[in-house]
Amino acid sequence: MVGIKDIAKKAGVSISTVSYALNGSSKVTEETRDKIKAIAKELDYVPNMAARTLKRQQTNIIGVYLAGYGGVFYGELLEGIKQGLAIYDYEMIVCSGKRSHLFIPERMIDGAIILDWIFKTDEIYQYADRGHSLVVLDRVLSSENIRNVLLDNLGGATLAIEKFVSAKSKKVYVISGPSESYDSQQRLKASIKELNRFEIDYEIISGEFTNESGFKAAQKINNLATEKPIDIFSLNDEMAVGLYRFFETTEYVIGKDVRVIGFDNTEISEVINPRLATISYSKKRWGMIAAEKIVQLIRNEETEDERIYTSFYPGDSFPS
Amino acid sequence: MVGIKDIAKKAGVSISTVSYALNGSSKVTEETRDKIKAIAKELDYVPNMAARTLKRQQTNIIGVYLAGYGGVFYGELLEGIKQGLAIYDYEMIVCSGKRSHLFIPERMIDGAIILDWIFKTDEIYQYADRGHSLVVLDRVLSSENIRNVLLDNLGGATLAIEKFVSAKSKKVYVISGPSESYDSQQRLKASIKELNRFEIDYEIISGEFTNESGFKAAQKINNLATEKPIDIFSLNDEMAVGLYRFFETTEYVIGKDVRVIGFDNTEISEVINPRLATISYSKKRWGMIAAEKIVQLIRNEETEDERIYTSFYPGDSFPS
Repeated sequence: MVGIKDIAKKAGVSISTVSYALNGSSKVTEETRDKIKAIAKELDYVPNMAARTLKRQQTNIIGVYLAGYGGVFYGELLEGIKQGLAIYDYEMIVCSGKRSHLFIPERMIDGAIILDWIFKTDEIYQYADRGHSLVVLDRVLSSENIRNVLLDNLGGATLAIEKFVSAKSKKVYVISGPSESYDSQQRLKASIKELNRFEIDYEIISGEFTNESGFKAAQKINNLATEKPIDIFSLNDEMAVGLYRFFETTEYVIGKDVRVIGFDNTEISEVINPRLATISYSKKRWGMIAAEKIVQLIRNEETEDERIYTSFYPGDSFPS
Repeated sequence: MVGIKDIAKKAGVSISTVSYALNGSSKVTEETRDKIKAIAKELDYVPNMAARTLKRQQTNIIGVYLAGYGGVFYGELLEGIKQGLAIYDYEMIVCSGKRSHLFIPERMIDGAIILDWIFKTDEIYQYADRGHSLVVLDRVLSSENIRNVLLDNLGGATLAIEKFVSAKSKKVYVISGPSESYDSQQRLKASIKELNRFEIDYEIISGEFTNESGFKAAQKINNLATEKPIDIFSLNDEMAVGLYRFFETTEYVIGKDVRVIGFDNTEISEVINPRLATISYSKKRWGMIAAEKIVQLIRNEETEDERIYTSFYPGDSFPS
């Protein structure tokens, strides 16, 4: 591959002159710059990113770490991050799996946004201690190089339980997400606290935040339940979709025999029949704020942790 | 940052011995290897990926290039690619935007899967000529380092038009995707060919493959149409969802006054009411095959171009 050495040789100038010219430095005249750029083009020179990063230059790329891509949830969040970063002329790459963690210490990316329960907290702190900028969306961490942009899960779950209280529910089945998920943990914690406060009986059915696990959970609930209406709080909408599918195979009618509240207000919850009552917040805004925070951290600008608030979105799956 | 020099110094061995030990080479004894690994751990050594790539080693990471993340379409495809790669112990990063193209010549990734109309064909050929492995999902390219895994758009669109023919449609409104999109171009081409063949009147309304553009297209169609039922072929499902939203604001009933066929059979098309009639194929399988091809190319194994076939999926949006 052609290097800046080759360009320097051909142009009859020093390597540092080529470097200045290609980086747009004012240390060389415009004439020299144009000449060197023309030679670089002629030789089909590709700027060497790996070499650049060894010199600690910036790439203007942010890494977004996710545990998975399934479901409709991530699309909106990623679009928000992408748009937010574009404002500051940053691009993003989306990474899953452990190998790509190395992009952080290698400085192939200037910072990372993390919503990935596989990413260990110890490792995140290690990168922060080494001066890398990080924004976490799924845990509370404290470091000068980390900011948290967290969803108000406690508020959201409390709003949902309030609805069951108003509807005089006798028992609520709560379908949880994966045990490692911060969002699931928080939603479950607040649900139990509120259900206990109002002395409503409950049972926790474990799910995986997927359609399939919602179907299975509904099957279990159907076997357990002795009274109608069956009241269910599904800790995300994706599982509620699976639940709808299961009850379609029974004679139970959603919104009458089975009352459901979800969480996330995804695109599917809007179009499903009957409309899913759910806890709503803007996933796009969440992404845009995460983008803003990471850029502010990188630029050493003053920036605070931030919270994304939720509201109850009514739907015929839970008549009130 | 700690380098292999520091490890060598502490261990009292040469740099190449450290390098052999850390890369698991048989040129050093197991005892030496264990000793050096222990020192590396003690010094908190991070293998230097940038330095490694300069030496042309593999990263076992594949880059997936997409134009955007919106809608439900990409989630399933990405899950398929991810699962397909995992079989061969590869991970993926998902890239959008031009800056991350550099990961290819820099060999931060071992190969790329491309479904991104922003990625220029010239540039793809340039990388292939330099020996990089590439799988393209959105154009026909021919090179020993490129394989195509293409959706059978022509077959799918032909199936849809066949339904309009059987239903004795007088006029079909075709909502297209972005003009740069290969999938849209192919679907449109086949639709026009078939509509002409059966002498059915048609009108093309341009969309952007998004929900919002589907809504706007429906508005236009509503102003143009003089007869019921209004027959619409939406070249993706995402736009059909927007179309549903628009007609909900009118007195027209989908499946009766307005008959719609979509394309893609996304998760939303299943739950929308009435169920969307659409052209179906497995996005997950598409992703898995793309993953298989890229790994085969990297490993210099024999591998052919492949096609993903489609079928008609019935729904009440187009009664037959």
